[in-house]
Amino acid sequence: MTEFEFIYNFLVRQHDDDVLLGIGDDAAIVRPRAGHDLCFSSDMLVSGKHFFSDVAPEDIGHKVLAVNVSDMAAMGATPRWVLLSAAFPELDTLWLNKFCGTLFEQLSQYGISLIGGDTTKGNLTFNITIVGELPQGLALKRSGAKLGDDVWISGQVGMAAAALDGYLGKVVFPEAVWQECRQKYLRPVPRVALGRELLPLAHAAQDISDGLAQDLGHILKASGVGAELWADRVPILPALRDCAPVEQIRAWQLSGGDDYELLFTAPEAVRAQILAAGEASGTQLARIGKIIEGTKLRILDDAGGEIHLHKTGFDHFG
Amino acid sequence: MTEFEFIYNFLVRQHDDDVLLGIGDDAAIVRPRAGHDLCFSSDMLVSGKHFFSDVAPEDIGHKVLAVNVSDMAAMGATPRWVLLSAAFPELDTLWLNKFCGTLFEQLSQYGISLIGGDTTKGNLTFNITIVGELPQGLALKRSGAKLGDDVWISGQVGMAAAALDGYLGKVVFPEAVWQECRQKYLRPVPRVALGRELLPLAHAAQDISDGLAQDLGHILKASGVGAELWADRVPILPALRDCAPVEQIRAWQLSGGDDYELLFTAPEAVRAQILAAGEASGTQLARIGKIIEGTKLRILDDAGGEIHLHKTGFDHFG
Repeated sequence: MTEFEFIYNFLVRQHDDDVLLGIGDDAAIVRPRAGHDLCFSSDMLVSGKHFFSDVAPEDIGHKVLAVNVSDMAAMGATPRWVLLSAAFPELDTLWLNKFCGTLFEQLSQYGISLIGGDTTKGNLTFNITIVGELPQGLALKRSGAKLGDDVWISGQVGMAAAALDGYLGKVVFPEAVWQECRQKYLRPVPRVALGRELLPLAHAAQDISDGLAQDLGHILKASGVGAELWADRVPILPALRDCAPVEQIRAWQLSGGDDYELLFTAPEAVRAQILAAGEASGTQLARIGKIIEGTKLRILDDAGGEIHLHKTGFDHFG
Repeated sequence: MTEFEFIYNFLVRQHDDDVLLGIGDDAAIVRPRAGHDLCFSSDMLVSGKHFFSDVAPEDIGHKVLAVNVSDMAAMGATPRWVLLSAAFPELDTLWLNKFCGTLFEQLSQYGISLIGGDTTKGNLTFNITIVGELPQGLALKRSGAKLGDDVWISGQVGMAAAALDGYLGKVVFPEAVWQECRQKYLRPVPRVALGRELLPLAHAAQDISDGLAQDLGHILKASGVGAELWADRVPILPALRDCAPVEQIRAWQLSGGDDYELLFTAPEAVRAQILAAGEASGTQLARIGKIIEGTKLRILDDAGGEIHLHKTGFDHFG
């Protein structure tokens, strides 16, 4: 199979009225809708770094898109288009069929069109650039947190980091817990519907990819505020709590990454509307802290004692 | 140096009124100008495949952007924004300073803002996604070639392929020739100004990256036409002609890649305007063929004899 056969047989599939020219020219052309801003994000995933080299192609096809869609969710944006670049060691039809299967399943689920990209030979590496739409002037930025805001989190946090330790052989989980953690690690579900509901409500937001404490730190720095984070209120799969000492649970929840849940702040006055947004989007929500004066993040347990983390999150070059 | 220090110290530099939110959030936000379409392209460059692993960081900084800007030139678009993803084996300050030096020099030359991307650890790999603007409804597509069109090429073709053979030790060139070919290979100059001038004139266009014959083949296929290509009319550095047998020269010119010149077709009626567009953009232009009936590409020498190529161009998985 040649590069061109791959592109035409595997990638040219969709129809989208706003795409004036799709895959197959020097560039794709889209017509932005009036009254909208566009937002852009790129993520590069490298075999052996962001996923194990023997991970199933269906799981890669899911994750490579999910982590990018999650960035759109974190802005409150509606994902519209993606460009996929990939280096493959070889063009293996069976592998590519499985990879493209979950990729296009998800593209279609979110109403996203693949409009371009690049393929080359090399160590398995993916880069997706995603383009989303926002109503002009609205966006969930990191810089909007205000004194007195509640700090909220979607879903359950720490399972992806637990799964990673499971893969690395550091911990052995009961089968049911392992399957749930694995699923969360391999097939994160971006919170697009929630992000859109939060657009008129939340002051600041971001998705949790590098660890809850580090990611909350980004919001604090960008907003020039401090926060209390109530460690024992951060939701987790209940059965996972019994699988490890509390320090390990906290490390998975606060310093682990790959959760792709939405962390956001919003004023007390909209609590009921936030909970309604959770209902409307089918997303569990929990209040896990408070924006306070200063610049520091104070992590507290339910007894009011302060918790100090060994590391706050992930840095590729740290 | 951490990933975040790299981003803030090296990448956050520019101001652009249409960028509402730049690097540092989950996504960047831009406001498209009314009356414009947007066009998108991505190129992935892998060390050891698209450039030699020991190439100077300044040269990589130039090329990684130039090949993407060239895609915008080929659409007649004005490049506006880029997202840069990179896998680095390590964050080496000296190397990054040199790389960012030529990268930002070029960004500023073309009026492009860096609005996002990703950095990770891995084999040296770059992916740039570029976003350009087109006046609504105008674009230089591959599919517009018409019977009777002239086939045109900008600049000189074949020097990049000759340089590659020089690097591989297959050919030794006189110093002056070597320097010119090397420059063309390492520092291609995208034809942005020419592309814009051609927007109301040309019927079809693309940039030459995989080999002139193969790339012209793409225009023919997309347009449902055939062409004559006059091999002896394809411009080359005159001194290079004396460095190799004519078969080798033709292979460099017709099957070599990496030239990043514009190949385009336009009706005879606008010949004078095409030449004026070349003047206005400071670009040498040559008429090298004719669009004819059928679907075939016939390559002819000046005596009218047909030339058959061993290979028409480059395929990463061929």
